[in-house]
Amino acid sequence: MEKIFGVLSMKHLLLVSVALNVSLILRVIDGSEKEILNSEKVHVCKNMQLFLSSSSSSLFASTGIEAQDGWERVINLDRGDPLMYEKYWQQMGDKTTIVIPGWQSLSYFSNVSNICWFLEPKFAKEVVRLHKVVGNAITKNHHIVVGTGSSQLFKAALYALSANDASKTVYPSITDFVKSGLQGILVHDLAYYWPQYTSISFPANHDLMLFTVSTITGHAGMRIGWAIVKDKEVAKKMTKYIELNTFGVSRDSQLRAAKVLKVVSKSCTEPSSSSEDESFFEFSHHQLATRWKLLRLAVQKSGQFSLPEFSPQNCTFLGREFKPQPAFAWLKCEHQKVNDCESFLRSKNILTRSGKQFGFSSKYVRTSMIIAITIVPIDDQLPKIQCLAKDDELGCQ
Amino acid sequence: MEKIFGVLSMKHLLLVSVALNVSLILRVIDGSEKEILNSEKVHVCKNMQLFLSSSSSSLFASTGIEAQDGWERVINLDRGDPLMYEKYWQQMGDKTTIVIPGWQSLSYFSNVSNICWFLEPKFAKEVVRLHKVVGNAITKNHHIVVGTGSSQLFKAALYALSANDASKTVYPSITDFVKSGLQGILVHDLAYYWPQYTSISFPANHDLMLFTVSTITGHAGMRIGWAIVKDKEVAKKMTKYIELNTFGVSRDSQLRAAKVLKVVSKSCTEPSSSSEDESFFEFSHHQLATRWKLLRLAVQKSGQFSLPEFSPQNCTFLGREFKPQPAFAWLKCEHQKVNDCESFLRSKNILTRSGKQFGFSSKYVRTSMIIAITIVPIDDQLPKIQCLAKDDELGCQ
Repeated sequence: MEKIFGVLSMKHLLLVSVALNVSLILRVIDGSEKEILNSEKVHVCKNMQLFLSSSSSSLFASTGIEAQDGWERVINLDRGDPLMYEKYWQQMGDKTTIVIPGWQSLSYFSNVSNICWFLEPKFAKEVVRLHKVVGNAITKNHHIVVGTGSSQLFKAALYALSANDASKTVYPSITDFVKSGLQGILVHDLAYYWPQYTSISFPANHDLMLFTVSTITGHAGMRIGWAIVKDKEVAKKMTKYIELNTFGVSRDSQLRAAKVLKVVSKSCTEPSSSSEDESFFEFSHHQLATRWKLLRLAVQKSGQFSLPEFSPQNCTFLGREFKPQPAFAWLKCEHQKVNDCESFLRSKNILTRSGKQFGFSSKYVRTSMIIAITIVPIDDQLPKIQCLAKDDELGCQ
Repeated sequence: MEKIFGVLSMKHLLLVSVALNVSLILRVIDGSEKEILNSEKVHVCKNMQLFLSSSSSSLFASTGIEAQDGWERVINLDRGDPLMYEKYWQQMGDKTTIVIPGWQSLSYFSNVSNICWFLEPKFAKEVVRLHKVVGNAITKNHHIVVGTGSSQLFKAALYALSANDASKTVYPSITDFVKSGLQGILVHDLAYYWPQYTSISFPANHDLMLFTVSTITGHAGMRIGWAIVKDKEVAKKMTKYIELNTFGVSRDSQLRAAKVLKVVSKSCTEPSSSSEDESFFEFSHHQLATRWKLLRLAVQKSGQFSLPEFSPQNCTFLGREFKPQPAFAWLKCEHQKVNDCESFLRSKNILTRSGKQFGFSSKYVRTSMIIAITIVPIDDQLPKIQCLAKDDELGCQ
């Protein structure tokens, strides 16, 4: 490891750290990082002995280990916990607050006249409205099937399209596939076909399209996704899979999702009178654009890494041309002596996902662009991924 | 069919209809049925052309078909949609209302220091408290795994206890099994081990116990259940299954469930000052006791049906002896010329589930004791089960 360490200078590592930790960079740039670092009461979880340095400069030099009570700081870019969006929802205040009385939604059934009997009508209405506002998918004459996140919908699609009993199918453990062709029907995962990630060039009109709330608004904890399905029989079979699997989908989360999607649609269609009413997609597009710009700048300066280049396309929704700015960046280690980029970065306390896991070269790693600051514990018995969130979310009350 | 009809007189059928439709009976008895029948604006869903007679007497004589625009009225006792509890939650007013701001619970992760990383700490706390209050299960030194209803937890348990890859296992389509032994560990489904259904004789302390919110409080739409697991490795594997299956469980519903369970616990431990503060288990126990009493009376009068007899046991929670009063009643058709009780009742517009579906005799049917009024459409293309709920739940807004 010392040998590899010698390959890249401390300066390079520092640059990579800066480059990868785009979330931190942005927080410094917009001043909010200072707030975080000065507010240890909020961000230090005493019960769990997490720690966060109170010196901003040390964060950027933290390629070594800084341990305290069995914990060390790690920059986790492996998973895509979409906390980048939290700020927007805080800005929106009460607009997306939902109130659910105790006597509401007791029944298993949301809409018994629908093929998907557990689909909340209010949620379906807002899904249709949002696709119309953004212009990224056709919903007319299609069926909507709601799922507990896109992972369940993916399996429901496999079940519906497979000739064999899906309970005998070995499912892949990843959900971020692109296209899975079965029996002539393609499953289109359009989770990222939204204006913060890519240009909207046409309203998609495929046989089976998958979407999820987490990638649009960041509400991953809701576990709500949906499929837009042309064929009635496929929609019926997908519904049957979810019926057998979880006997429906949380009605509470569907109602909350409906409220959030409605606010997103309204932020796009009603002229904003203040920064609080900023269009959701303008906000999130801007956030990602800045992160990508900084990442490219740092990678360029390092001279040891590279990123894929994209061509600009016109976006019918934002009304301008821009290059794709994906939620995950594929970083390539260009140095000839480093073949396993993931292990190398891991030794520097930067977690990423190796290209190997996607059937590709280990010279590449996948890094998340939508996370917040993350911390992981050393203890093997605990999960390796830690999100620095509010204390109560980390179990410290 | 005419032949069979001749076997039992109209009087008998009328009695059976009265007996089975215990929900309606009770509503008449406590006066709320009158409210329902007089408030057609609320309960008649115009868009769907459902209908409900405004004459209460005709409901009890409705063993024939009354069709209107392709719909007919059917008494559905097949499934256990637990709407019986709705009244209690209406009584409780704002006490169980939950408010969730838009910026809350964005992350996938609820508690990264826990084996079950998607378990909300507040929910876990209320689960532990409720078991302690009721005295029906030991939680100390056990692990809690939350699931999207008990159906998902059942499969997670199979996955955790099976030597083979659970993705290759053919799952049974029913979830209300009693005990499934795999590799020496028994799965105890204790969904009904609550004081409204059966005497609490001891705190259960098994290797793997399953519970679900729907059977306790009636909040089936939340899709929240939990497992109490002794072995750490089993808890880890169950968590892994749910991670692969739905990547967690709705955080919104867990938070709502926490609030509801807290109110249940408090209603049991704090002395009631008014009927609004009535102990939840006293209320629900009383409701079921009345239903069972009426059902037994009607069955006895009919002379053509029978019900199982139960022995009374002392309940440590309610502090008195009582006979079990299950959420489902097993009704046996005693007439020697009727071998298929389900078909016979179906021809009279009463839906039940045949004993055959449980590997038993077709002379028996399972009938739900916790439903509200239900209606089904004739049209085969629509789902067969209809719950008469509020208009917005039926898609009529």
